[in-house]
Amino acid sequence: MRVLARDAAKHTNKRITLKGWVHRVRELGAISFVLLRDRSGMIQIVFEGKTGFTHESVISVQGTVRENAKAPGGVEIQEASAQVLSAAGSDLPIPVNCGPEKLSLDAILDNRMISLRMPKILSVFRVQATIVGAFADYLRGQDFTEIKTSKLVGSGTEGGAGLFTVEYFDTKVYLAQSPQFYKQALVASGLERVFEVGAAYRAEKHDTARHLNEYVSLDVEMAFIDSERELVELEKGILKAVFAAVQKKNAAELEALDAPPLPGPESVDGIPCVGYDEARDIISRLGARRVFDINPEGERILCDWALQERGVPAVFVNDFPRKKRPVYAYPDGQKTLSFDLLFRGLEITTGGRRINEYPMMLESLSKFGLSPEGMGAYMDIFRCGCPPHGGFAIGLERLTQKILGLQNVKEASLFPRDRKRITP
Amino acid sequence: MRVLARDAAKHTNKRITLKGWVHRVRELGAISFVLLRDRSGMIQIVFEGKTGFTHESVISVQGTVRENAKAPGGVEIQEASAQVLSAAGSDLPIPVNCGPEKLSLDAILDNRMISLRMPKILSVFRVQATIVGAFADYLRGQDFTEIKTSKLVGSGTEGGAGLFTVEYFDTKVYLAQSPQFYKQALVASGLERVFEVGAAYRAEKHDTARHLNEYVSLDVEMAFIDSERELVELEKGILKAVFAAVQKKNAAELEALDAPPLPGPESVDGIPCVGYDEARDIISRLGARRVFDINPEGERILCDWALQERGVPAVFVNDFPRKKRPVYAYPDGQKTLSFDLLFRGLEITTGGRRINEYPMMLESLSKFGLSPEGMGAYMDIFRCGCPPHGGFAIGLERLTQKILGLQNVKEASLFPRDRKRITP
Repeated sequence: MRVLARDAAKHTNKRITLKGWVHRVRELGAISFVLLRDRSGMIQIVFEGKTGFTHESVISVQGTVRENAKAPGGVEIQEASAQVLSAAGSDLPIPVNCGPEKLSLDAILDNRMISLRMPKILSVFRVQATIVGAFADYLRGQDFTEIKTSKLVGSGTEGGAGLFTVEYFDTKVYLAQSPQFYKQALVASGLERVFEVGAAYRAEKHDTARHLNEYVSLDVEMAFIDSERELVELEKGILKAVFAAVQKKNAAELEALDAPPLPGPESVDGIPCVGYDEARDIISRLGARRVFDINPEGERILCDWALQERGVPAVFVNDFPRKKRPVYAYPDGQKTLSFDLLFRGLEITTGGRRINEYPMMLESLSKFGLSPEGMGAYMDIFRCGCPPHGGFAIGLERLTQKILGLQNVKEASLFPRDRKRITP
Repeated sequence: MRVLARDAAKHTNKRITLKGWVHRVRELGAISFVLLRDRSGMIQIVFEGKTGFTHESVISVQGTVRENAKAPGGVEIQEASAQVLSAAGSDLPIPVNCGPEKLSLDAILDNRMISLRMPKILSVFRVQATIVGAFADYLRGQDFTEIKTSKLVGSGTEGGAGLFTVEYFDTKVYLAQSPQFYKQALVASGLERVFEVGAAYRAEKHDTARHLNEYVSLDVEMAFIDSERELVELEKGILKAVFAAVQKKNAAELEALDAPPLPGPESVDGIPCVGYDEARDIISRLGARRVFDINPEGERILCDWALQERGVPAVFVNDFPRKKRPVYAYPDGQKTLSFDLLFRGLEITTGGRRINEYPMMLESLSKFGLSPEGMGAYMDIFRCGCPPHGGFAIGLERLTQKILGLQNVKEASLFPRDRKRITP
């Protein structure tokens, strides 16, 4: 029976079997120390003489668990013998047992199949798995139903720009920018409350530390709301659940990554919500020059302001002007019942109430120079009775990045796609 | 405060507010009965005189809860008044308050935005949500980590045929057929146990009751196994958890859909596992003609046989010949350590142990006429130390279809894509 590294201390003075990767070998004359890595952590194995193991070889070890205060975890394996289950070549494309900070981001991503073995890098994705699970669990607890919608669509949802084309038999389709129309159809179906964890695509040529051409969108949509304020409260609930889960399940990963402290529940409740005009005023005042938009620099200034004023590095911005939001945003004069969430200097959520009334949707289409005929079956949702509703989408990689304090959003994607990067 | 239909009985003789869809209106001279539908169910509202409501309009109702043994749920709403939140047109593209069996599958799918409102159809996706949640929960409980991998890839994993091409800036990429290579990279990274719920694409021209060109794949991969038998046991554990969750959470949906009884835990444990040759013999014997392959008719015969012999309409088939499995299948002479699961006459899972040794992978590539250079970074996984491992993939729509006894797999996809169907 195999024992995991983290459980070895429960078997002191017993002989056990361990399996894992040769993370590091130190040969000290008559004995060798091997650091063995498995999914639970690391453990030190003491061998007589030289082992001949190459780094990253996978081995099965039999040995006796002995206490050793100097060893990682307080125990080590002595009187050890081992079989090699899979020998690694001596020419690893990149070293695995150094810190990723020794390598450039390009080297890390070019060798993604192997850089994912670096414990610090893998920690990012252990945290990401917790985020996805906590998001889904929280919403299920609030009577939301998980949906899986098609990513092959006939048209865009966000204005039509930035779509990837797919050759689909004798015709062409596009990769979905978001499940927006489908979420709305399902809210209007009677499910009322839906969420989706799925891929989203943007064919934007940006190649920055904040953009990905393929990302995972955490999508939420709910019926019977009056304004975006109820969505802001729902998102606070999600964030509290996600932060609590990460804190509980990933203490080791947070420490390994030297992540900034996560906002506690009171801090999340205290995230300010400022109108778009006020947000621009704050940016203009603190940035010492008049701004007409909230650009990345402005997002950083707003989060700094929130940290200063409210002790939390996050801010909701609402009341966006109509011309800055999609055709389906619910108008309120020249404004819309919409919001963004900025966290640690980065927009991680966009959402709002959506138009649910057929005549209002017709008016909005005409304002945007669109025709109802061009919207296909989308218009059926409103013609056939649609409750007041709204929703939002959280970028999973951006949320992961900001929770962990990573420099580049690509670090929070297992296999990131950007303008130049399509492998591995 | 809004009360859901299912909770109205808790407020007998009190005035409450309900919100939902006008499912059906019956006008009987001086009074009208309105069946109101919300996410929790249906409730009858009694109005004085005519209401003027069109079917599917969304209304807010105030009224008093009164016991009425003849009403659905044992209560109805009397002394009611209502506001229309969103008026539906009187020309619904399809009726919502009839059974879907009154419509052709084409009519249902052509009008998908509206047919999803039919309670019976929506039931399918409530069950599907339970399946996804139970799958993920079970695996998290077994120390599996959820992953999200790119669906834009440079090449296929299943032989290269049947790929959809995406125009990606100045180059071309493909929609992933499966996360196979990524799952393997992550097992080998040290995570050891991973799962993914994600879209998979097959550009196959089949347009049958069992094929979708886009489907949701429930993918599992785990390290340190010796043979496919351990994967069969893992899948049994998943199925038991999924069936138990559906039984517990979706009793109403199972009844509404007149679904066949779900196999209990003992039945799942008793699912037989037969070798490929034995499976062909059974089919030949019971089908009364010699077969050289397991075709759809053979899958039905095998499941009938298992039901007869073991009381469970499912069978694992293992020991597939090498030429019937992908290049990465672990060989065992002329056979492979691989398996399929057939359930109620349909293959719902393919899996097996994978090759983890570099020399064996080189040999397999050459047998399949492939070169290591053509495999890109995939070969790094094996060159750098890779534990024995294997995994499988369950087609979510097929599993949903077979749990519910649906005729066509497209009924188990929210927005199915087939050769001709790309909208809505």
